[in-house]
Amino acid sequence: MQVIDLSEYAQFKEDEKVLKLLHDSPSWRIINFNFEAGQELPVHSHDVDSEVMILVLEGEGYFIDGEREVEAKPGSMLISKVSEPHGVKAKTRMRVLVAIAPPI
Amino acid sequence: MQVIDLSEYAQFKEDEKVLKLLHDSPSWRIINFNFEAGQELPVHSHDVDSEVMILVLEGEGYFIDGEREVEAKPGSMLISKVSEPHGVKAKTRMRVLVAIAPPI
Repeated sequence: MQVIDLSEYAQFKEDEKVLKLLHDSPSWRIINFNFEAGQELPVHSHDVDSEVMILVLEGEGYFIDGEREVEAKPGSMLISKVSEPHGVKAKTRMRVLVAIAPPI
Repeated sequence: MQVIDLSEYAQFKEDEKVLKLLHDSPSWRIINFNFEAGQELPVHSHDVDSEVMILVLEGEGYFIDGEREVEAKPGSMLISKVSEPHGVKAKTRMRVLVAIAPPI
């Protein structure tokens, strides 16, 4: 087993969100995104069969899909087809875990 | 997008861990396990090609594989092939998110 301590990946940048690739395999890609307040993963989609999960680890913000803004806090989890619009907007400094299965 | 609030699944039982199925699709199965102190997901494996991720949401315990016990706290994440031994043991009341891709 491989054990990752997510606290070691808590880096932030003033000008852009920080992406940390944690794992990549035929099953999935697992990434940590770190946002300063106001930064976002813009609403987007890709024409593939995969699904995406986004779990809030720290901080607060919103899950967005171009129509709705749903409040997101630690323990809030978005699940979406990658082919459907999805995104994240940070209200405070915010960390999320993103997994895409299978990876795209 | 589907948004899940994991705090709604925080149920525990004195006699056995509680499993909450959150999502099941061709991409993966996502489950919340809730342990009282001392409860465990015993070390096990299955002869399939999938991978498993276990992320600690709350509480403290250990990731176990029959040889090692690695301390696990919020933000600790285990990644393992499902075919390799893996398990969890709770030291305190503990919640983990488990994902298996592809589902088995």
